[in-house]
Amino acid sequence: MLEQLRELTTTASFNRWAGFEVIRVEDGECELRMVWRPDDMGQYAGFLHAGMIAALLDTACGFAATTTSGLSVLSSQFAMNCLAPAVGEEFVAIGRVVKAGRKQIFTSGELFAFSDGERKVVATATTLLVPGG
Amino acid sequence: MLEQLRELTTTASFNRWAGFEVIRVEDGECELRMVWRPDDMGQYAGFLHAGMIAALLDTACGFAATTTSGLSVLSSQFAMNCLAPAVGEEFVAIGRVVKAGRKQIFTSGELFAFSDGERKVVATATTLLVPGG
Amino acid sequence: MLEQLRELTTTASFNRWAGFEVIRVEDGECELRMVWRPDDMGQYAGFLHAGMIAALLDTACGFAATTTSGLSVLSSQFAMNCLAPAVGEEFVAIGRVVKAGRKQIFTSGELFAFSDGERKVVATATTLLVPGG
Amino acid sequence: MLEQLRELTTTASFNRWAGFEVIRVEDGECELRMVWRPDDMGQYAGFLHAGMIAALLDTACGFAATTTSGLSVLSSQFAMNCLAPAVGEEFVAIGRVVKAGRKQIFTSGELFAFSDGERKVVATATTLLVPGG
Repeated sequence: MLEQLRELTTTASFNRWAGFEVIRVEDGECELRMVWRPDDMGQYAGFLHAGMIAALLDTACGFAATTTSGLSVLSSQFAMNCLAPAVGEEFVAIGRVVKAGRKQIFTSGELFAFSDGERKVVATATTLLVPGG
Repeated sequence: MLEQLRELTTTASFNRWAGFEVIRVEDGECELRMVWRPDDMGQYAGFLHAGMIAALLDTACGFAATTTSGLSVLSSQFAMNCLAPAVGEEFVAIGRVVKAGRKQIFTSGELFAFSDGERKVVATATTLLVPGG
Repeated sequence: MLEQLRELTTTASFNRWAGFEVIRVEDGECELRMVWRPDDMGQYAGFLHAGMIAALLDTACGFAATTTSGLSVLSSQFAMNCLAPAVGEEFVAIGRVVKAGRKQIFTSGELFAFSDGERKVVATATTLLVPGG
Repeated sequence: MLEQLRELTTTASFNRWAGFEVIRVEDGECELRMVWRPDDMGQYAGFLHAGMIAALLDTACGFAATTTSGLSVLSSQFAMNCLAPAVGEEFVAIGRVVKAGRKQIFTSGELFAFSDGERKVVATATTLLVPGG
């Protein structure tokens, strides 16, 4: 599964640009790493842009969904809570399948910022995906 | 206000990379344009990446919020519905303030794809922001 | 359609208890009225309970969805923003279909409080439903 | 804290009507029980009404928030996912504080249905509250 998702992520031009790296895959779970780049990933105050936060969470959740429901899934609903400014040298998103149904897949995710060796949750999300997109 | 937001968007490195262009600002409303780039904005099926959809909607909503509540606002909750595959040569996000309170600002947004001269809604969102971030 | 939804709402014991009244139905739209009862609908501060706000919005959106997608629809995702304390003698929820797909129906809704002849938006919502429940 | 929340819940007329019972309170966490009544809590198919699901989740989350942020909190954003039909003799909602800030409190909740001695998750939610409402 790890190899399959590593291959899948290279087919997405945005994932390549952002440098998303699949670091762990289990049944119903996926972990994604990204190195912070101040020159093209920041919002106006210098934190990680909300779009990048969403991209990490949505992708980790989508990849988690592929482990239960096949490679072709599409997000239809995405909700996130930004708990703290997303500041760090590196970010890791963990996506988990909450329930994989025939018509819909429910997932949840957490985004961690790593700064000076400390890990901190900066955002959480839930997504709803449709299989066989 | 248009000049102020055009300046603000240049301070965000992600917005510069994505080429976000503020094309209209009114009291409580903001319109943002982005040209599609297949080489670094796509998901695995070649549509606009969900992170980019979120970035456009969140930014348009945030800019709308600045018109009522000052330049320093931070998103705390973001929810979006992806209604149709985001395919087009150009995308326009419109953000609107629904209610601007002292503690919280509620906004909503729509994302339109332009393809062969046709306009189509591809996603909607609501965001909740905190002023004086 | 009005008669059909008036009949449908009597089959739901909660709707009967709450006194939900279908006052308008159009293609893709439904309007629902409820009279405020302080003795069994309030939260601790005396406003309309968040559960009742959700019930009105979810039901109006669900009824709107039946006009495009058949009587058997089930909510799978519901999100609401509470803009102002829900205070009034009467409440009216309007649900609208945003997009009716084969697999999913997207709707949005608004809740109005009527107080001394004045109408005020107190909450908004979006819901995602699955047809053929 | 248990006594305080048991007293608080009696001040809400809806909670009294629904028979919400606070069965466990800890720092940042609250558990709420409700017995199913087919005669005034059902939707059209006979499951627990989405408004009741929302009421249980929102109340458990709100009570959890009071343990960290004082008795006067107001929900401003509520999102729920309905994972399975809410069928059971009894329902238990667990609310947890995810982050308690000065301006906003983020919580999450789960709703369990108990049927023939079996426990099943039927819905999840996140809420965002404002302290000092």
